[in-house]
Amino acid sequence: MSVSPLGADKTDIPAYMQALGRAAREASQGLRRADSGRKNQALLAMAERVDGSREALLAANAEDMQRGREAGLDAALLDRLALSTARIDAMIEGLEQVAALPDPVGEIDGLRARPSGIQVGQMRVPLGVIGIIFESRPNVTVEAASLCLKSGNACILRGGSEARASNAALSECLKVGLEDAGLPAGSVQVVATTDRAAVGELISRPEFVDVIIPRGGKSLIERISREAKVPVIKHLDGVCHVYVDATADQNKALAIAINAKTQRYGTCNTMETLLLDAPVAETLLPELAKRFAEHGVELRGCERTRAVLPQAVAASDSDWGEEYLAPILAIKVVDGMGAAMAHIERYGSRHTDVIVTQDYGLARRFLAEVDSSSVMVNASTRFADGFEYGLGAEIGISTDKLHARGPVGLEGLTTRKYVVLGDGQVRQ
Amino acid sequence: MSVSPLGADKTDIPAYMQALGRAAREASQGLRRADSGRKNQALLAMAERVDGSREALLAANAEDMQRGREAGLDAALLDRLALSTARIDAMIEGLEQVAALPDPVGEIDGLRARPSGIQVGQMRVPLGVIGIIFESRPNVTVEAASLCLKSGNACILRGGSEARASNAALSECLKVGLEDAGLPAGSVQVVATTDRAAVGELISRPEFVDVIIPRGGKSLIERISREAKVPVIKHLDGVCHVYVDATADQNKALAIAINAKTQRYGTCNTMETLLLDAPVAETLLPELAKRFAEHGVELRGCERTRAVLPQAVAASDSDWGEEYLAPILAIKVVDGMGAAMAHIERYGSRHTDVIVTQDYGLARRFLAEVDSSSVMVNASTRFADGFEYGLGAEIGISTDKLHARGPVGLEGLTTRKYVVLGDGQVRQ
Repeated sequence: MSVSPLGADKTDIPAYMQALGRAAREASQGLRRADSGRKNQALLAMAERVDGSREALLAANAEDMQRGREAGLDAALLDRLALSTARIDAMIEGLEQVAALPDPVGEIDGLRARPSGIQVGQMRVPLGVIGIIFESRPNVTVEAASLCLKSGNACILRGGSEARASNAALSECLKVGLEDAGLPAGSVQVVATTDRAAVGELISRPEFVDVIIPRGGKSLIERISREAKVPVIKHLDGVCHVYVDATADQNKALAIAINAKTQRYGTCNTMETLLLDAPVAETLLPELAKRFAEHGVELRGCERTRAVLPQAVAASDSDWGEEYLAPILAIKVVDGMGAAMAHIERYGSRHTDVIVTQDYGLARRFLAEVDSSSVMVNASTRFADGFEYGLGAEIGISTDKLHARGPVGLEGLTTRKYVVLGDGQVRQ
Repeated sequence: MSVSPLGADKTDIPAYMQALGRAAREASQGLRRADSGRKNQALLAMAERVDGSREALLAANAEDMQRGREAGLDAALLDRLALSTARIDAMIEGLEQVAALPDPVGEIDGLRARPSGIQVGQMRVPLGVIGIIFESRPNVTVEAASLCLKSGNACILRGGSEARASNAALSECLKVGLEDAGLPAGSVQVVATTDRAAVGELISRPEFVDVIIPRGGKSLIERISREAKVPVIKHLDGVCHVYVDATADQNKALAIAINAKTQRYGTCNTMETLLLDAPVAETLLPELAKRFAEHGVELRGCERTRAVLPQAVAASDSDWGEEYLAPILAIKVVDGMGAAMAHIERYGSRHTDVIVTQDYGLARRFLAEVDSSSVMVNASTRFADGFEYGLGAEIGISTDKLHARGPVGLEGLTTRKYVVLGDGQVRQ
């Protein structure tokens, strides 16, 4: 019978998860009190410990990799699972960067006097306890823990079972960092069982967990959203569009379209559908085809696209709305911005959409009316990213509308409560 | 067979609700484009129409009242159901006030240049479609519709079946206002069936509804939160505390305690438990008892309270955490602020909690560490209110932590998307 550090029997999953939940809830009270200096001390101590544990981390990871190869994991999964000296360097750098970020907690906005004589403002405070569920990449353990800690939240991390040895080794480093700063051990807890029932417990206990952030494939996220009894901040798909208007600067349009598709294929902010205003289709399509061919991108076009580019594959209705995450691009010729916006409204995923135009009025309307987490004029979809936006860090990109929308940094892990300063005022 | 204005058969509830949902989703696209002038025009036209429909409104309400009396509704419910000239005046005034409020939509915050050359900011935009489920008070129909419209959201309103004739008559006034301003009829829709299955449909269709706001008793709200497949902004209970510290100005403590309990008994921001620091209990309790007796408030005390006030009822463990909504007050003597905060953490509902103190350090700690939607120093809990806070209007008070916390005004009905202004930038 294996016993967790908390003394709970890990074969009794509900009891084990409740023990983690209670420890997290209690730790979150301590974290509310912790000032930035103490949180940064813990982050830097964690970085130091990761640095000093390179051999142990690589050995633990080798164990995971060995098991993964035996289990027949594919090359992409094995790549995500692998730790290397460079990846450990990146973890250490990440911890140091989060320590250097400004602390959002305690900031008071808009403190104003009211006619009654009270002063009212809003103070930024931690959410409380955050549950994070993720798949193979072990560096997410460190990244998520650091962002939760800096924003004053306790966290319970549930990584993929294929990374269990790596995560356990990283967990030790995080624990030492907390101890060094005198912060409660319950501030960061890594779930030490691979039993899937643990996820079910984690997402159904609002008394222990304030919000769940799932990171991983769409099916994982859909399942968690469907079953959770706790609010979820989530990212579903990224079906991002670039619309090139008739007034666009054609060189900028080409540069943006190529970059949005080819700079990286597997990211959620990659363009999946290119919409071309009819007057520019004939001139732009041949040059686009040439450039995309150089990158080996398969083009799937509507009939009007194929009238200019007969070599393009005929797009079927399922191509609109498809997140390829691959060197494939759907292209549609439309009649003006209204048609483009209607297409985005119908097939888009409300992630990131771009207009390329030199027309001021169209740019203004597109910005106001397209209902996506990022709406851009004359820029590549690939900018939709917490670092590019200046958040300093990113725990994910939310495609939800409530609470956090778009790239989520430290601020998205906090909430604001009202604070009222009085001098004996009563209500009339 | 009754047919709705939308042509859907109201006896086929799923089809009827889908027709409402589709109309709302479509209207929300129109509302995204509507400027403040047009929205205000609709609100003022609604006010005018309500003013011109007084007789019809009172007649419809008389029908509801008659049915309510026959069904044996209690006096409190009948009072909430009743319309009067004064209540119609208040509706009209409310519409005019919402028209006069600043429009939150379109505001761009923090537009900053990034090293890549793009400018990034956040634009405030409507949530989309809001479903509001409420009980007997027909004035909520007008209030909710006006706040949703002003914030650019389409809404689907589901009032109590006991108010159906009043709500139908009000719905007519709202419709005329929308027409007058040329806004889509689907912008405000009142569910025209009392079948409870309509609520089930409304809360389980994220493709039509972006957020549900239930207003009413705790059991309604709990049921909706449990069953909803759409995010819910909710208010559960208000177990509000006042803690009087040893350093408190005793006259201020008395005034705040009396006001927080007796100014109104049935509101969520009424104090339900008074916590007294031991050194002041002996001097404050006799005077408090005298003043509360004048108001007919029943006191339920802990043992230490009853040592000073033997006439107080002995509090049982269930008194802590009880939302009386009545002239009853629980009193507990505690040893210092730490014990008070631990009590609030254990028994409170994270709504509104107050410290009365002259100690700067304690005030600062209480503000930072008490995890409630409103935390106050030296002021009555009764100030936790959208109007008192200067929001201009209030659709409710949220006890959730995500998205909106505390009194929810127009801003709480919006979200922020990222906007990026570029000039051809691509990602390196």
